[in-house]
Amino acid sequence: MKKLNFLDTGFLLAESREQPMHVGGVALYTLPDGADAQTFLQDIAGIMRDTDALQPPFGDRLKMGPLGLLGNVHWEADPAMDIDYHIRHSALPGPGRYRELFNLVSRLHSTLLDRKRPLWEMHLIEGLQNRQFAVYTKTHHAAVDGARSIHLSRSMLSNSPDARLQDSPLSTASWERYRATLGEKPRRGLSDREIRNVAEVLKARFDSSANLFSAVKRFANAWAGNEDALALPFLKVPRSSINTSIDGARRFVAQTWPFARIHAVGKAFDGTFNDAVLAMCAGALRTYLQNHTELPDESLKAMVPVSLREEGDIDSSNAVAAISADLATNIADPARRFAAIKASMRAGKAFYQGMSAAEVQAISLLMQVPGMLLMPLGLASRLPPFNTVISNVPGIRETMYWNGARLDGSYPASIVTEGVALNITLVSYDQNVDFGIMACRRSIPQAQRIIDYMEDALTELEDAAGLASAKKAAKPKRSAKATGKAKSKAKAAPKAKAAAKAKAKPKAKVRAKPKTQTQNKTKTKTKAKAKPRAKTKAKVKTGAKARARPRSVAGKKTTASRGSRK
Amino acid sequence: MKKLNFLDTGFLLAESREQPMHVGGVALYTLPDGADAQTFLQDIAGIMRDTDALQPPFGDRLKMGPLGLLGNVHWEADPAMDIDYHIRHSALPGPGRYRELFNLVSRLHSTLLDRKRPLWEMHLIEGLQNRQFAVYTKTHHAAVDGARSIHLSRSMLSNSPDARLQDSPLSTASWERYRATLGEKPRRGLSDREIRNVAEVLKARFDSSANLFSAVKRFANAWAGNEDALALPFLKVPRSSINTSIDGARRFVAQTWPFARIHAVGKAFDGTFNDAVLAMCAGALRTYLQNHTELPDESLKAMVPVSLREEGDIDSSNAVAAISADLATNIADPARRFAAIKASMRAGKAFYQGMSAAEVQAISLLMQVPGMLLMPLGLASRLPPFNTVISNVPGIRETMYWNGARLDGSYPASIVTEGVALNITLVSYDQNVDFGIMACRRSIPQAQRIIDYMEDALTELEDAAGLASAKKAAKPKRSAKATGKAKSKAKAAPKAKAAAKAKAKPKAKVRAKPKTQTQNKTKTKTKAKAKPRAKTKAKVKTGAKARARPRSVAGKKTTASRGSRK
Repeated sequence: MKKLNFLDTGFLLAESREQPMHVGGVALYTLPDGADAQTFLQDIAGIMRDTDALQPPFGDRLKMGPLGLLGNVHWEADPAMDIDYHIRHSALPGPGRYRELFNLVSRLHSTLLDRKRPLWEMHLIEGLQNRQFAVYTKTHHAAVDGARSIHLSRSMLSNSPDARLQDSPLSTASWERYRATLGEKPRRGLSDREIRNVAEVLKARFDSSANLFSAVKRFANAWAGNEDALALPFLKVPRSSINTSIDGARRFVAQTWPFARIHAVGKAFDGTFNDAVLAMCAGALRTYLQNHTELPDESLKAMVPVSLREEGDIDSSNAVAAISADLATNIADPARRFAAIKASMRAGKAFYQGMSAAEVQAISLLMQVPGMLLMPLGLASRLPPFNTVISNVPGIRETMYWNGARLDGSYPASIVTEGVALNITLVSYDQNVDFGIMACRRSIPQAQRIIDYMEDALTELEDAAGLASAKKAAKPKRSAKATGKAKSKAKAAPKAKAAAKAKAKPKAKVRAKPKTQTQNKTKTKTKAKAKPRAKTKAKVKTGAKARARPRSVAGKKTTASRGSRK
Repeated sequence: MKKLNFLDTGFLLAESREQPMHVGGVALYTLPDGADAQTFLQDIAGIMRDTDALQPPFGDRLKMGPLGLLGNVHWEADPAMDIDYHIRHSALPGPGRYRELFNLVSRLHSTLLDRKRPLWEMHLIEGLQNRQFAVYTKTHHAAVDGARSIHLSRSMLSNSPDARLQDSPLSTASWERYRATLGEKPRRGLSDREIRNVAEVLKARFDSSANLFSAVKRFANAWAGNEDALALPFLKVPRSSINTSIDGARRFVAQTWPFARIHAVGKAFDGTFNDAVLAMCAGALRTYLQNHTELPDESLKAMVPVSLREEGDIDSSNAVAAISADLATNIADPARRFAAIKASMRAGKAFYQGMSAAEVQAISLLMQVPGMLLMPLGLASRLPPFNTVISNVPGIRETMYWNGARLDGSYPASIVTEGVALNITLVSYDQNVDFGIMACRRSIPQAQRIIDYMEDALTELEDAAGLASAKKAAKPKRSAKATGKAKSKAKAAPKAKAAAKAKAKPKAKVRAKPKTQTQNKTKTKTKAKAKPRAKTKAKVKTGAKARARPRSVAGKKTTASRGSRK
């Protein structure tokens, strides 16, 4: 019986009907050639279910003493494990677009996991168009951290379309086999397990795990005297319609963009990929608030987890810092907005530089789980520590297969908390970046528009950077993916055809955009760059064809864009 | 703002993740000739959604003061009513049998309604075979009582296949129009509203609505001295595997039997239709416990709500009595078991005869909501007031249509409570009786077998009564339904064909039965009665063809039996 640590118990304590604390995601796959959807999914489900020895936490349930969550909580093997309860087969109503998929995922993500059972569910979803199917997974944050779930999905997937599952990916055998392949390879990026270790630091510092109230107060007082306001939570965080009391229903939308497009923007403005992501999200949030509610005078702040070790800024072996990024939503000009965001991220990292590893960890932890910490104070929606969360999770940079089915995209489904009704999480996969947006259904009724606004914002940034899209139009992402596939020998012929098809249909279709008040828009239908800005370092080409459009996974216009993916 | 009464608040207080307090049902329809499923369902959903003025409680949410549920609770109009949240479109995975439908309904019934919104959901479900679709509805017991929901569905349905909905059945306009047609027609059968009025009696008697504990204790003490033990709750109720602590997951199964078959059994044994239902359920529970866990030495007791006014036994204007029926599960012989059940039902009614209307109401109320009353004591699973609930709700005795779609069956989905992990509710519809069985998934993992055992038990009762099935085989229920339809002139041709088809395929297929230990079984494949019992008054015919089988809506063998319904 493994005892739950302080943070894991906190995720349970913070949970309510309005604030489920499970994380998950939606993976999109294309059926192998010639496979029948129903048979394939039943086979996959059969393989998943077929194990006597489930790896933790899939066979474990919570065991509490008389004090419940306030006492010691352990994991124990569920004596009545009922695998059919956890692995479920679902379907979409017609016409089976992504809109119907997102509706279903929104509903599934809105319900609480059953605490009397192992805290996970997996839904195999049929009924999508174009021979796709989807898998939605949902696991309690107390049971699986981010690093573990990435490892798990890697252990399920293969970069060969010919690889077949030998046994259930949920089995201990599968896990041991995968762990053996890991070797000494350093782990990349954000690890929740690392954050969890930090909880022990915090606990030692405050002597009592229960006294969150005074912990928060002491931290808040310490922060209030600090001059480096950019990186501080609780300071200068405006109220907005995103920062309201939440209810139990969710809206989930997702979208894919080519990695190269966003990366080019970051490079053009002399910033990082992450800066570009933030600028894109910031532009979208500015438009959203302008069009739907009210744009606050002060700029929105986003909690952005970054791995300081990756950046090499700080000599801290395990540090993951949570930076409060200034999204500069009060700045109309996209280039100036990018600059402000970049400065805030640099200041955020600098903020941690004078600190010990333990201090970095302790502060980051407080920012990482704000709902949990502020909830006991009842302050979360009145005093948001930040306006939203934008989290970039490193993923797999090549085409992967699940028992022969090609993984087309992998979209995170995260948590929204009291006072923070929007979460944007992105995962890099293959040549793309897959965004998953989770929102409170009532607070953010038009969540799908944020996807449209993100494309607008990216286009605006490209325009401001003087980036033309000729280069990108020359390699549409489908083609990139198809080229990747052509590496594997077995099925070269159909893939070459797919690549040819993708090239034959450049995504010239321009989507009808909702009216925005965004300034500095000079887009034309041909997307040729009229006024390149000299100060950026991007190359400008005239006569450019249509920009590489995002792979549309949004609620709108999915049929059209999906057609071109076939 | 309407204030919630004592009982309605009780349903909210009694609710937990493990014990959702919503009721609902599944209605099966056949699409009108030539209609496309997707279009039809979208049209229906559109009509349902299209209203500005929702009748109560569909537009109302809970409003609580600082004391929460312990203070006054009101209904208030939801200022952010989001009809798309409540009316949902779902689909079944292949092959779209009833098994897949019941899986989905089981899941949907397992999740809590959102207390920040109006407490109902309606799911339009496509993907069934044979041009059928399903509608699953779910409403909190605090929001809609049984009588109201029957009225609501009546206001939606028509006995003409040509009638079309004029406006949303959820609108106030539709409700007013329906109410006008009611006139002075007396209401039939069980009305929850009547029971709710009783709560006021109880409240007055005990002076405090909050002090349920002493109320239960005083009643229990009073009962302990009474000699008429048959009708008493808490007495001689054995423990069984049905009477365990429940978790939050449900299993739902359903089945249809011809009304005439069950009615004939009741008549043959000189009892009521309800007695025959209880005997059928009792036989099934006996087999289930024998095969799956352990049959208690003492017989199981079922809570059976009966309308005393209907029976004419007692001079009480509004009395609905909850009788604790002895199911005689410790008696192997079906005829003797029937006799014991009948005696217990008569004794149960007699128990109430010496009482005032107020006393009848007060005691019945206590039996009606045992989970709620015993939960505060923590006694529900240790001291079950009865083992299960078997509730017979009068329904519509003719073929009905919903905007042209024929209603094929209507299956109640009720509540299981701590210590009572099984609920059997039945509704008469057209020439049939539709059973809905709701069970705790963990306590009763083989719920679908109960359906098979009910057919076994009915057959056994028919055998014991000396009932041959020649008469019934001559009019299979599909034929009965088709004849009913043929009355309407518009579409006589296809219906006549359907009737001919039904007759051409008598249900000769005998299902493989799980091994049972039930005694006195003399069934043969031809079902000819070998040893008719002289003491029953049924007519015996030799050379009988196959017995009229139940219309199979159980998890098993649905494809085969559904084929014959087409």
